[in-house]
Amino acid sequence: MSGGGACGAAAVPDAADRTARLALSRLSEPGDDDLASLVERQGAVEVFDRLRAGHLPHPRAEAWSVRLSSLDVERDLERAHRVGARWLVPGDEEWPAQLGDLARLGEAGRPDHAPPLGLWVRGPLRLSDAAPHAVAVVGSRAASHYGVHVARGIGYDLAAAGHPVLSGAAYGIDASAHDGALAADGPTVAVLACGIDEVYPRGNASLVARIGEHGAVVTEMAPGAAPTRLRFLRRNRLIAALSGATVVVEADLRSGALNTARLASVLLRHVAAVPGPVTSATSAGCHRLIRDEQSVLVRDAADVVELVSPVGTGIRDEPRGPVTLFDALDPAARRVVEALPARAVTDPQTLARVAGLDLATVQAALTRLEIAGLAQREVGGWRAFRPPAPDGSPARHR
Amino acid sequence: MSGGGACGAAAVPDAADRTARLALSRLSEPGDDDLASLVERQGAVEVFDRLRAGHLPHPRAEAWSVRLSSLDVERDLERAHRVGARWLVPGDEEWPAQLGDLARLGEAGRPDHAPPLGLWVRGPLRLSDAAPHAVAVVGSRAASHYGVHVARGIGYDLAAAGHPVLSGAAYGIDASAHDGALAADGPTVAVLACGIDEVYPRGNASLVARIGEHGAVVTEMAPGAAPTRLRFLRRNRLIAALSGATVVVEADLRSGALNTARLASVLLRHVAAVPGPVTSATSAGCHRLIRDEQSVLVRDAADVVELVSPVGTGIRDEPRGPVTLFDALDPAARRVVEALPARAVTDPQTLARVAGLDLATVQAALTRLEIAGLAQREVGGWRAFRPPAPDGSPARHR
Repeated sequence: MSGGGACGAAAVPDAADRTARLALSRLSEPGDDDLASLVERQGAVEVFDRLRAGHLPHPRAEAWSVRLSSLDVERDLERAHRVGARWLVPGDEEWPAQLGDLARLGEAGRPDHAPPLGLWVRGPLRLSDAAPHAVAVVGSRAASHYGVHVARGIGYDLAAAGHPVLSGAAYGIDASAHDGALAADGPTVAVLACGIDEVYPRGNASLVARIGEHGAVVTEMAPGAAPTRLRFLRRNRLIAALSGATVVVEADLRSGALNTARLASVLLRHVAAVPGPVTSATSAGCHRLIRDEQSVLVRDAADVVELVSPVGTGIRDEPRGPVTLFDALDPAARRVVEALPARAVTDPQTLARVAGLDLATVQAALTRLEIAGLAQREVGGWRAFRPPAPDGSPARHR
Repeated sequence: MSGGGACGAAAVPDAADRTARLALSRLSEPGDDDLASLVERQGAVEVFDRLRAGHLPHPRAEAWSVRLSSLDVERDLERAHRVGARWLVPGDEEWPAQLGDLARLGEAGRPDHAPPLGLWVRGPLRLSDAAPHAVAVVGSRAASHYGVHVARGIGYDLAAAGHPVLSGAAYGIDASAHDGALAADGPTVAVLACGIDEVYPRGNASLVARIGEHGAVVTEMAPGAAPTRLRFLRRNRLIAALSGATVVVEADLRSGALNTARLASVLLRHVAAVPGPVTSATSAGCHRLIRDEQSVLVRDAADVVELVSPVGTGIRDEPRGPVTLFDALDPAARRVVEALPARAVTDPQTLARVAGLDLATVQAALTRLEIAGLAQREVGGWRAFRPPAPDGSPARHR
């Protein structure tokens, strides 16, 4: 009867558990705490059998029963089969262990963010392989040209570095991040708020098809399900949990990406945000996250890789400004260089007065500057080094 | 002999001290630790008298003497007088007490950042009044259109809020910040690296003239002095010390503004940076400061005012996204709203199945939605509320 077992993360799932979870996921909305704890205690098979028989003693049994009349497990499996999707449940080898962390959201006072009963997946990328290194790249649908550009670049570079790029296949930032990863022939995962055989938005149909061919498309929604606002919000918990870091590239103050970032933070994932012009509404959410110290500022994929790499690895070479000869000089030599006229010749006594140094210091500095090629000796004194003429002929006195 | 007194911050300075400090400041470069500690121990008058007489027992006496031949205190005073400048020394009522903090830079291992021996000032704004509330707004000379726009706006808003805007009168960010403050008819202070009667760069001559008419122009350099790289760097310590916060609007990785920010940080002033596109080299220094937690991210003048205001005051109203009717709904009502068709009428049973809720919950939600104006009752069921026609005629059923 309870072959699927309580919890079931360790036990190998049997066919009845698999079927019961599939059915229960269609009968409920994502993240249902009550249903998740019933399944945890009694096993999916027993819960489903009792619900179907009208004998489930629970105040919400009626709500879970309203869709019983339209339930058709065979039809769901067939629709999924047609698009090459598989149904994963806890205990499957490919099941991503990271989803267990979702229990933290409930403990942190976020109701109905329970782990999914199962996941529909299609594509060659195994979720259990992808999740440990995956980075979520998320943001506004109404992204700016700047945001789209940055998201694509970060997606490309992360995927090229071997980090699967997770996102929601929406317009704007999501699509650009996926597209960048695909352009790098790298791994990418789309987590949908609709059925595995549906595409939302329609305009991204070919993008999602490419992700399904080269990466993975994932959803907890039953085949044919349409997305709703609540389903988008619950979908975000999967994006946050299935990645080691969430990067918000652009987000206005109402963006769902901020919801994903907050969930990632509660899940103890890294949260990062890309800054943008303070005059741009689509960066306002990113700036809020950084100001509130809920996320670190990242400039590119290298910053993100540094964030998700084990301590002491993945540290980038910090870009520094160009180092000039002037930088290498000691303070006295710098003063002398600045006092040296470019077009006239001057004597060390004058240099000493202009630079505010004694004569011996000036003369020692001039010798060092001559060696460094920054000063040249002339009849009657010194001048700044005159660089070679544009035709390449050497300057005098070199 | 030592009428100017050691230190002199409390004693009223006499004419001899005033003159000796003026002379010593021309004979040395800014921030000279050795000279500052001699003056502190022996008084400016005694140090200058001994130096002039060739009897100052100090290894750097020769270096301080090289400009003695060109020293002419009367000429300096006359040049300053001609541009309406006054010579301030410690102990003067207008002397800004904040400069005493500069001793911290030496303690923090930054040589030759001693307080100035005196300051040349012109303009109606009193430095001692300006400094307690002043905000330094600094950044790259080669600023972008974005940086210039933001600097001008922050300069305007800070000055309009009564905060003097301190900067260095350079091209780019500096000029825009000053210009914004002047446009608000607000206080602004230019701290120069050249003599009070000089203008660098020449292109900002009319800007500096306007600052001198309405605010204050300040320098520790002697009249006629030209700026050097070292003088720009030492000038930065005055900008950092004379303000309560330093805001970097745009800075490439080599910008002198980063030097000012670091000095401000050592001086325990607030340090803030404005983010920009990660694709812009002129924002790279700002992003570095924020990433390294050396500065907080600020978006506008309101963020800066919050930073420099006493705890519990000056807190801005956080901009939030628009609040919609949907936001105010409970979860069940949200599900029902999403399940309601806009163009057709549907019955509560269907709504319950689509929304995954029991019938009683759906019916209670529909009643609340009708009151909220989000659902309307029709013959045969419910539909989403149809808003009034564009001509303003009321919709049916309202």
